[in-house]
Amino acid sequence: MDWLDDVKWDRDGLVPAIAQERGSNDVLMVAWMNRAALEATAARGEAVYWSRSRQRLWRKGEESGHVQKVHEIRMDCDSDVVLLKVTQLGHQPGIACHTGRHSCFYRRLDDRGWQAVEPVLKDPERIYK
Amino acid sequence: MDWLDDVKWDRDGLVPAIAQERGSNDVLMVAWMNRAALEATAARGEAVYWSRSRQRLWRKGEESGHVQKVHEIRMDCDSDVVLLKVTQLGHQPGIACHTGRHSCFYRRLDDRGWQAVEPVLKDPERIYK
Repeated sequence: MDWLDDVKWDRDGLVPAIAQERGSNDVLMVAWMNRAALEATAARGEAVYWSRSRQRLWRKGEESGHVQKVHEIRMDCDSDVVLLKVTQLGHQPGIACHTGRHSCFYRRLDDRGWQAVEPVLKDPERIYK
Repeated sequence: MDWLDDVKWDRDGLVPAIAQERGSNDVLMVAWMNRAALEATAARGEAVYWSRSRQRLWRKGEESGHVQKVHEIRMDCDSDVVLLKVTQLGHQPGIACHTGRHSCFYRRLDDRGWQAVEPVLKDPERIYK
């Protein structure tokens, strides 16, 4: 798999991967991939990340059902960040965040600090039963 | 600056920062920020990154003129990735990439590997004189 050798993995063997929603172009989340995760993502056409907290491959949606169908895989000019164009499945509108929100980037900086500005679409207790 | 303490800086004191174009929602680039870079970005309203290769603060556009005006700063649920909503100044359409392209994510994976699929808008030799 020559294309996997083109990626500049960091000292932990990882790269950040951005999931961007096809259509809206919303940035849904950023997670990490190792070589096996990126290879599996390309092979399956669904996002597979490396969970740094659990130290194992993590098929996005394996617990929540919030699978990400992958339409495109892109890489940046430094070859150290990956961008996935995805459709966020399992809920309408799509929920990528474990807090039950559309996007993980739901906090915005203002004069008082970081403020949550996006609604919870589904109670996390109902996502992770 | 309490809000800077809310960021989970990595072991190098950095977080990845995504620059996303306001309007199109295109992901333009990913760079890194330390505490001083994020503080300067918020204070100036223009993107300031930490250059890992040069080990110094890097005002985006300081050489190229391709300054990023920052409209919003967001943070993800894990507090370890920052997202900037920006207007990419200095050229129309905006050029964020040092290769002279709109976005750094100009390579797409296909059966032959990573393929450049976005045009060069300006010769890099004319950007970095």
